[in-house]
Amino acid sequence: MSEVIATYVLSGKSGTFEKKAEGIALGLTVGSWTDLPQLEQEQLRKYKGRVVEINELESDTAEIRIAYPSGNYSNDIPAILTTVFGKLSLDGRVKLTDIEFSDDLKKAYPGPRFGIGGIREKVNVFDRPLLMSIFKGVIGRDLDYLQSQLRAQALGGVDLVKDDEILFDNELTPFEERIKAGTNILREVFEETGARTLYAVNLSGRTATLREKARRARELGADALLFNVFTYGLDVLQELREDEEISLPIMAHPSFSGASAASPQYGVSYSLWLGKFLRMTGADLSLFPSPYGSVALDKKQVLAIRDELVKPDEFNETFPVPSAGIHPGLVPQLIADFGHECVINAGGGVHGHPDGAAGGGKAFRQAIEAVLDGTTLVEAAFANKELDEALKLWGEGAAVSVKK
Amino acid sequence: MSEVIATYVLSGKSGTFEKKAEGIALGLTVGSWTDLPQLEQEQLRKYKGRVVEINELESDTAEIRIAYPSGNYSNDIPAILTTVFGKLSLDGRVKLTDIEFSDDLKKAYPGPRFGIGGIREKVNVFDRPLLMSIFKGVIGRDLDYLQSQLRAQALGGVDLVKDDEILFDNELTPFEERIKAGTNILREVFEETGARTLYAVNLSGRTATLREKARRARELGADALLFNVFTYGLDVLQELREDEEISLPIMAHPSFSGASAASPQYGVSYSLWLGKFLRMTGADLSLFPSPYGSVALDKKQVLAIRDELVKPDEFNETFPVPSAGIHPGLVPQLIADFGHECVINAGGGVHGHPDGAAGGGKAFRQAIEAVLDGTTLVEAAFANKELDEALKLWGEGAAVSVKK
Ligand SMILES: [Mg+2]
Ligand SMILES: [Mg+2]
Repeated sequence: MSEVIATYVLSGKSGTFEKKAEGIALGLTVGSWTDLPQLEQEQLRKYKGRVVEINELESDTAEIRIAYPSGNYSNDIPAILTTVFGKLSLDGRVKLTDIEFSDDLKKAYPGPRFGIGGIREKVNVFDRPLLMSIFKGVIGRDLDYLQSQLRAQALGGVDLVKDDEILFDNELTPFEERIKAGTNILREVFEETGARTLYAVNLSGRTATLREKARRARELGADALLFNVFTYGLDVLQELREDEEISLPIMAHPSFSGASAASPQYGVSYSLWLGKFLRMTGADLSLFPSPYGSVALDKKQVLAIRDELVKPDEFNETFPVPSAGIHPGLVPQLIADFGHECVINAGGGVHGHPDGAAGGGKAFRQAIEAVLDGTTLVEAAFANKELDEALKLWGEGAAVSVKK
Repeated sequence: MSEVIATYVLSGKSGTFEKKAEGIALGLTVGSWTDLPQLEQEQLRKYKGRVVEINELESDTAEIRIAYPSGNYSNDIPAILTTVFGKLSLDGRVKLTDIEFSDDLKKAYPGPRFGIGGIREKVNVFDRPLLMSIFKGVIGRDLDYLQSQLRAQALGGVDLVKDDEILFDNELTPFEERIKAGTNILREVFEETGARTLYAVNLSGRTATLREKARRARELGADALLFNVFTYGLDVLQELREDEEISLPIMAHPSFSGASAASPQYGVSYSLWLGKFLRMTGADLSLFPSPYGSVALDKKQVLAIRDELVKPDEFNETFPVPSAGIHPGLVPQLIADFGHECVINAGGGVHGHPDGAAGGGKAFRQAIEAVLDGTTLVEAAFANKELDEALKLWGEGAAVSVKK
């Protein structure tokens, strides 16, 4: 069947969910049913929503699944969101936790252009998790300041550096100048060290200008784009991905995604938002809060995001990038939880190192190498000064956020 | 000062909010402060976020206001949302309830092109609330079906008819055919009755196609556009509004807005989403759930939306369109709550009338006239058959949703 099946968790009294589910399945499709003449039922049958499943959960909630035939909507994210959660999003405690697309519908979505494999080729690293760092405190700073931060990060051996997502086009460090300066610095570092670092520049501004700006970024030699997709729209991300003249890796930032996904009872699930939809519409990397730091998602939620990004599928895989609160002492835990197919991403954990960002990057690389060698960090710290300093500063491990 | 001031309501222990607010004001701007050398503080002072106010509310919540200088972002909705609620949206129980723009920043937003005054001119009605109705059960139906529904609604004396927001471009009733058919029917009715009805066609599809499609709609004589703005992005609405070649009234549908606004503790407020932002970015009409029906918002929330749409401001006013659960018996309550400057919008309350949509429309018009004449509906029903039937079916008044 050509359809999408939406899964919802909703509140209500036990025994009322069947009627509620039927009401949704009809209300969001053909409107009414039992009072229609036989002939009209025949005509409308293929447009009628269908209750697929009702699971009563614990106290006064149920998970219900409803199928929406593809004849009802155009196959794009805005139409599908309107169909399955347009009016319903306004109607009391109900959370949209998943949307399954039948294979024919799924084919219309591009998935990541590069994906994990393509990003690994660009940095020429295949045997370990990648390492990423973030510019810090760059608001109000000039190009020289950014350049020296970028250089320090790259010298530490990070594979990717991303713009701060709150750095927009501005007079001190305009978009094009950032790209040119970044490209120069990273070529210099490559010539010195032989290691390739990619810089993801923040693509921002009015919606209609984004594609032209992204094409220009490519002409200027940009490595990758950072994009605050949830302040624009998933369809805009998809259009950036589909544009052959852009053809740059896209790093999706979770900025503003919590507005729709943070509530346990309303909105959408993080796994749909930061997982399935980002992969379908074409993000090559998806950043999300790690379960270790202060901006903490529940570990189950985080692993559900990760699963959507890398599970076997027709799409390329999207690189999971657990972020926030990461320091070198967490690397064993990160690799245990996420495996090798992730990007370890740190801000303070790189810049806050006693030897600066270059030291921070090295400490992370040493920690990654130790884990891959089966050595403990404490052992590895004997021979690795930067890791030793990092462990002294931040310790090992962390409390993991697990919801009651 | 050129800045935006964001208001948040957040959870936490009494006495901790000052530190939290300072953390936000720095974390979302310059990053750090007290440890910076004097010279750098001088350079960065004009980029630094500022805690404007902290109000501890009842148990473990506070309202805080933080100012973000305009040098930190480009003056567009995506950049501003990322700045004030990007990372923060993911960080526990925090709700963004308002954003105030300083006058210089506000000037960059267009506001409604037509507004209440312009819409009134188009329908040539100045002395009463307008009346709108909605197509019902049109999924899977052909153009003939839509045409006869439109004709019945127009004959009932409604001023506006909107597409069902879940009707997208489809083979049975394609966008352009709907416009042509609608225009013909409404011209016929105008010739018969002298009353002008506007038809708002659902503008849907991929983001990059919308402007061209909207221009084409205008060429074909479309009256107005319905737009599911929250499945696209507020900036996309603004671009539709700003396009001189489109120049059609835009009716913003609240579809999917609940994903971000429905939770009391997370996301954004309805008054910001369906009120202030829709007006700033250029919606001529804003639909929102009435406080009377089954899809019920709290009355205080609804009036806060209304206030944002019509309060004295440099922008044209946006027509408030309280929707859902409206029948003729509610008209006195509606006018008491919303005054004359609203659009009374009904689906079932028009189509469910014993005499069909034409009868439903007439019943509403009779109810409106009665209220303006200072007559009770029961009195007016003696001389008005359609109103009499409506009151028998639906009664008078309704329970109003007011949150404890
Ligand atoms: Mg940041
Ligand atoms: Mg509808």
